[in-house]
Amino acid sequence: MSKTKYINKIGIEIPAYIEGIGALQPYSGSFTKLKKGIMEEPSIPPPNKSILPHKSKLKKSIKRAIQACNPHDGMTISFHHHLRGGDAVLMQVMEVIAAMGIKDITLASSSLTSAHDGIVPMIMDETITGIFSSGVRGELGLTISHGHLKKPAVIHSHGGRVRGVHTGRINIDIAVIAASASDEEGNATGSHGPSAFGSLGYACIDARYAKNVIVVTDNLVEYPCIPPSIPQNFVDFVVKVDSIGDPKKIATGTTRITKSPLDLRIAKLASEVITKSNYFKDGISFQVGAGGASLAVAKFIRTAMKEKQIKGSFLLGGITSYGVDMLNEGLFRAIFDVQSFDAAVSSSILNNPNHVEIPAGYYANPYNSGCVINKLDVVVLGALEIDTNFNVNVITGSEGDIRGASGGHSDTAAGAHMTVVVCPSFRGRIPIIKKKINNVVTPGETIDVVVTERGICINPLRKDLLQQFAQSNLQIRTIEDLEEEVRGICGETKPVEYEDRIVAVVEYRDGTIIDVIKQIKE
Amino acid sequence: MSKTKYINKIGIEIPAYIEGIGALQPYSGSFTKLKKGIMEEPSIPPPNKSILPHKSKLKKSIKRAIQACNPHDGMTISFHHHLRGGDAVLMQVMEVIAAMGIKDITLASSSLTSAHDGIVPMIMDETITGIFSSGVRGELGLTISHGHLKKPAVIHSHGGRVRGVHTGRINIDIAVIAASASDEEGNATGSHGPSAFGSLGYACIDARYAKNVIVVTDNLVEYPCIPPSIPQNFVDFVVKVDSIGDPKKIATGTTRITKSPLDLRIAKLASEVITKSNYFKDGISFQVGAGGASLAVAKFIRTAMKEKQIKGSFLLGGITSYGVDMLNEGLFRAIFDVQSFDAAVSSSILNNPNHVEIPAGYYANPYNSGCVINKLDVVVLGALEIDTNFNVNVITGSEGDIRGASGGHSDTAAGAHMTVVVCPSFRGRIPIIKKKINNVVTPGETIDVVVTERGICINPLRKDLLQQFAQSNLQIRTIEDLEEEVRGICGETKPVEYEDRIVAVVEYRDGTIIDVIKQIKE
Repeated sequence: MSKTKYINKIGIEIPAYIEGIGALQPYSGSFTKLKKGIMEEPSIPPPNKSILPHKSKLKKSIKRAIQACNPHDGMTISFHHHLRGGDAVLMQVMEVIAAMGIKDITLASSSLTSAHDGIVPMIMDETITGIFSSGVRGELGLTISHGHLKKPAVIHSHGGRVRGVHTGRINIDIAVIAASASDEEGNATGSHGPSAFGSLGYACIDARYAKNVIVVTDNLVEYPCIPPSIPQNFVDFVVKVDSIGDPKKIATGTTRITKSPLDLRIAKLASEVITKSNYFKDGISFQVGAGGASLAVAKFIRTAMKEKQIKGSFLLGGITSYGVDMLNEGLFRAIFDVQSFDAAVSSSILNNPNHVEIPAGYYANPYNSGCVINKLDVVVLGALEIDTNFNVNVITGSEGDIRGASGGHSDTAAGAHMTVVVCPSFRGRIPIIKKKINNVVTPGETIDVVVTERGICINPLRKDLLQQFAQSNLQIRTIEDLEEEVRGICGETKPVEYEDRIVAVVEYRDGTIIDVIKQIKE
Repeated sequence: MSKTKYINKIGIEIPAYIEGIGALQPYSGSFTKLKKGIMEEPSIPPPNKSILPHKSKLKKSIKRAIQACNPHDGMTISFHHHLRGGDAVLMQVMEVIAAMGIKDITLASSSLTSAHDGIVPMIMDETITGIFSSGVRGELGLTISHGHLKKPAVIHSHGGRVRGVHTGRINIDIAVIAASASDEEGNATGSHGPSAFGSLGYACIDARYAKNVIVVTDNLVEYPCIPPSIPQNFVDFVVKVDSIGDPKKIATGTTRITKSPLDLRIAKLASEVITKSNYFKDGISFQVGAGGASLAVAKFIRTAMKEKQIKGSFLLGGITSYGVDMLNEGLFRAIFDVQSFDAAVSSSILNNPNHVEIPAGYYANPYNSGCVINKLDVVVLGALEIDTNFNVNVITGSEGDIRGASGGHSDTAAGAHMTVVVCPSFRGRIPIIKKKINNVVTPGETIDVVVTERGICINPLRKDLLQQFAQSNLQIRTIEDLEEEVRGICGETKPVEYEDRIVAVVEYRDGTIIDVIKQIKE
């Protein structure tokens, strides 16, 4: 008899099969599968197409373009989220599709933001029954957490999404690619035009694998559109719309440097950990995640690099204007940009050859000959919760509701020489450092340092770091000790009450399941 | 009973099966298959790999790198030919492999030049038993023509090669990519370094599909190497050698503008055909092939564009310094460069964002959502022979020996609005315009105009062109009339005598067989 469930490497029960998703594999360690040198799950061939010379790809409306793509019940449609809170393309397209009466759609967006709350009614009426995304927020998160999505959502990392498309787990029927400039053949970019938003990194894999690819732009330019971030040979149809959205809404919330004194203090501490580590030297490569204190670390590192006259190798990841300034100041030789966290970054992608737009596979796919995160020295990441095994939750809030994003968190944590998580030890009397957290996205074995306002914890697996910092004046303490102190301040927390039903699975970057998210009890 | 042979659309007998190659399909018309909107032959999935973070890809020697790639009898090894007559990588690698005693190898180089005559002994001792290439010249051509290669060679077009890799007909075990600069992760380029040679366009598909990818460079640079023309996530090993070759030998022979008065006269006539056509207007896109008169046409078009103040869209193909000058003069908005015909072009690729390095699939693969040749207005090509049905031979000489290259000939002829072939009507008493030619590479239905020193022939299929030029002072005549005149001058030619054995097949870009090349009688 085959197994009906597993206990994965971090002790979480994973069903062997979930209706609507299929067979699951339990998480078995960050590098267990990568060590094998191959991907066990076979990949699928990209689709084969042909077109006659000089045939037009232009369609008069989104509806016409969708109609040309053999739309059908049960199809999978993909989007990219570079326009973040300013995106107007996903909703425009989904409204057209909903009006066409198509049902049972799987929505595969590289992430979902507050701009996509409008799909909630489409979940309620089963227009959308499945979701693949690296993040879910707002109304949409609550809708899923309360069990309204028919099939459990799959939360993936940015690198894992590329793997999922290669293997056909995400088998895209129609990819919709928003572009701030495109020509009539679909050479498309986000690097110029009135709605410029920067990198198109997440959309590259969709363009290669989707059975139908539609470029949607508000800026149809003379042929050829340069740079062809998405090359014409992958694009089937091109549609001009009035607006793809508001790029000013990209740089909000999690993509701005905090003004909170607490976060700034934590960021300062984290920068000291970095500058006192052996990695802080010429050739250092560096990434900071979005949100709270993590972005602020860049500010302090910038100053420290100038003081010590250190010249780094590359900056990676979601790229802010801060990163571009550091490139222009000569602090780093290059930027690899899979996602621009500020529309202002676009002109740097366009004009600076050392600001390199990269596909998500190049960024973080664990199953290729070596993505860029494998070259990272230091990454600074945020957290919603951390347990005493250093496991990190970035997907569910303290009430157990889905309200975050996996993003590149587990990818970069696995790749970097030193992964530093920055967060307060508690927020508003709710502990962040806990014995048991609601969900796990990134396994503790890939987290090296946790920096809070109440001290710094080093993962005991990293004896080398403990030794390095032993001589420093850094306030190092065990995470058990910190957890106890936090519990003393906040008191025991009442665990969230869940139903039995699984509403989402958290996929690790290698395709195994690291956690399941359950329906919240009303 | 299944068929043992076919007669293809241009009346040539094609066997249904050839030992060592497999089942063959007869050529059925240039667009018959493309009209279907899909590729019938299924494509294969790209290989799946994985690697641990921070693991070195550097190998101390070519031998060590080959040893790491599971070398074995019967394997397929691929190369690109951007260094043309100056290439030193193919021979260095093949000598190592031959010394290792590996036999029955299929050599899949995007083309082969005089720099590769050294593989003749490897053919004789069956180290190499199969060849895929777009061109074969010199000693190597004679060796194949005289029946010494065990399996028939497959001559493909540049676009067709990409299709062949996608379908697995060319199933690459080891791809070797020569780079003028690479970092230790294999981010590789031909655009800078002492041996800079320009575009790496042909190697892109090999990098994506080969089970093992080795970058060979004489210029290992600090990480990251920018631009990553070949991105690190496809590269398994990196080797530093003393020299990848001599880029000064790229711009020789077929890549220089002719000084022959006859060729210049033909080129002038061809430029008149173009400037008097309806395609000569703002937005014109243009490609000239290598060799003889065709490259010289660019010279006259340049002057005409300046005089008429015409601003073109893009220049395509093998790119010379002439093309770069035209870009810099503002005569074209962009260059798409799959192969640089002059090492001096490299700095333009590196520094001019409108000089775009493109993969061969983007250039000419018939099986995608639309390659760039599909947007071409005018292409000017050469010919070794042309028959009165406008079929063109660019692969075998008047003695029937293999000495040419398919290259992008049939690709661009299929894509362009107007395909102009330039050649003398005879050379040294040997007719070029003939009733029956030795071999066909490009079908006559894709050739629109033939320009010789004795007049201009328009394909009767192009009634629109005949009408356009009716009012002009161009000396238009039928190709039958021209052939008769040439025959009057040169006399009847004795047909080449062949054995029955097929030594090579000429694959059309869609994978069907347009012709077979037979062994020459001694």
